[in-house]
Amino acid sequence: MLINHLSIIGVGLIGGSLARALRKAKLVNRVTGCNRNEETLKKAIELGVIDDYSLNIRDAVAGADVIVIGTPLATTEKLLPQIVESLKPGAVLTDVGSAKGSVVNAARKVMGDQFARFVPGHPIAGTEKSGVEASFAELFIDHRVILTPLEETDDKAHKLITGMWQAVGAEVIDLDVKHHDDVLAATSHLPHMLAYALVDCLAGLQESDEIFKYAAGGFADFTRIASSSPEMWHDICFSNRDALLKSLELFSEHINQIKDAIEKSDSERLLEIFKRAKQARDKFAKSRNQLDNNTE
Amino acid sequence: MLINHLSIIGVGLIGGSLARALRKAKLVNRVTGCNRNEETLKKAIELGVIDDYSLNIRDAVAGADVIVIGTPLATTEKLLPQIVESLKPGAVLTDVGSAKGSVVNAARKVMGDQFARFVPGHPIAGTEKSGVEASFAELFIDHRVILTPLEETDDKAHKLITGMWQAVGAEVIDLDVKHHDDVLAATSHLPHMLAYALVDCLAGLQESDEIFKYAAGGFADFTRIASSSPEMWHDICFSNRDALLKSLELFSEHINQIKDAIEKSDSERLLEIFKRAKQARDKFAKSRNQLDNNTE
Repeated sequence: MLINHLSIIGVGLIGGSLARALRKAKLVNRVTGCNRNEETLKKAIELGVIDDYSLNIRDAVAGADVIVIGTPLATTEKLLPQIVESLKPGAVLTDVGSAKGSVVNAARKVMGDQFARFVPGHPIAGTEKSGVEASFAELFIDHRVILTPLEETDDKAHKLITGMWQAVGAEVIDLDVKHHDDVLAATSHLPHMLAYALVDCLAGLQESDEIFKYAAGGFADFTRIASSSPEMWHDICFSNRDALLKSLELFSEHINQIKDAIEKSDSERLLEIFKRAKQARDKFAKSRNQLDNNTE
Repeated sequence: MLINHLSIIGVGLIGGSLARALRKAKLVNRVTGCNRNEETLKKAIELGVIDDYSLNIRDAVAGADVIVIGTPLATTEKLLPQIVESLKPGAVLTDVGSAKGSVVNAARKVMGDQFARFVPGHPIAGTEKSGVEASFAELFIDHRVILTPLEETDDKAHKLITGMWQAVGAEVIDLDVKHHDDVLAATSHLPHMLAYALVDCLAGLQESDEIFKYAAGGFADFTRIASSSPEMWHDICFSNRDALLKSLELFSEHINQIKDAIEKSDSERLLEIFKRAKQARDKFAKSRNQLDNNTE
């Protein structure tokens, strides 16, 4: 048995899917859930995601060997003190937040000596849906999970969390905290801002119903992520504030270059931008296909 | 037989798919192709897309009952004079350009009395791939085709082109030229600019290979359209210049609102924007699903 007693704080898409996958692989003896909303916990028991639950964080944490924090980022920072004071000796704490700097700072502050038992993590997986009803055991198969262990991080704790994610089908990669936050700002947080801004922009137009009516498949793909949880993305924006603002600034420069080329009828420059982007996107698609083929 | 002799000027994804679909439905006797590149035409014969070809536009147009212009927008405007002087009496001309104002203006200028035989069209279908090799008969099934007939447009010509698109599975909608261009600028041309700008932005970063490596599925969906033909999109930008610049301006305002809310830690405002966008996107997804269900 990889984990005797697992505790999931915030039983949603990610926490629920992890619990399902570990149970399916018979790698966990007991899963305890904790959530603000008892209905969610009852549903999670009904769906076979958890064995039991507690509405009290201290109780949910007390007996567990591994605690996974699956709550939105702002909540994580608020809950950390309560979680930390209930950790049993040797227990390992990890999280699944999309930004790591803010969580690491908060954990370092409240955990003291126990900080070594915290392995910051971020599974690059998910859908635009959220909630335990959307969870499924296969979510992490062939997806990457980034861990950002610190100098202080206990080696055994790090290995345990690495093994846990590998056991549910993920490829685990270690990154530096700041590097993680910069890369994710560019590849994930920025695109979400663009999708939200685009949909909000069109929804504000007078003839918005008609406008959405003529939208094609490309638009549907492009804006799918605007259906993601507003609360979760609100938290991510403030947790990864600096890197995201830098990405937004850089993007604005690039969109202005396109605008400028159109305004000045600079045919050559516009074509050059599009060609460069297509080349990069085709290369990306090719590497993804190779990845897909390799994992078959 | 719906069409005795069809001529496709520019045998690519759209023109090729239309020819395939009409041949498959046995609604056309003969399809003649015309292209700058003879290799493409040989390939189109090999693939069973066309029956014969001519490299000379006048010859390709001369005997045809329906002529479909499938070339990029800038090319269309250049070729119109040659096409028009070879039209046989009663022949109907249509196009598939993504912007309509510029084509309509050019056609009105060069066609004189024959302008009544031109039915401007725009199938809202396509993939990020281009070329006759990517064409397939089912491309238009359950997709919308927008026609923008003018006051001068001949009623029979309009009905013939409407019938042609309906016969290959499309839903045909008539729109005013300017309205078409405004709506498409917002729902299609703007998202393409955002995708090109985002990919170009990331590709320019020092660690771009690594950045693309950590990109998740959302990013792949979001940037798929950046693999579209640079030449085609270059032409669309200039053909729909004014509407596109207006859309870009409006988008910049919305992305700046998000940036501003993050900078000023305006939690409430940011959450409000995300919630509004999610609501609009969910509504859009629901209406698409209903459409999908209706057509099953």
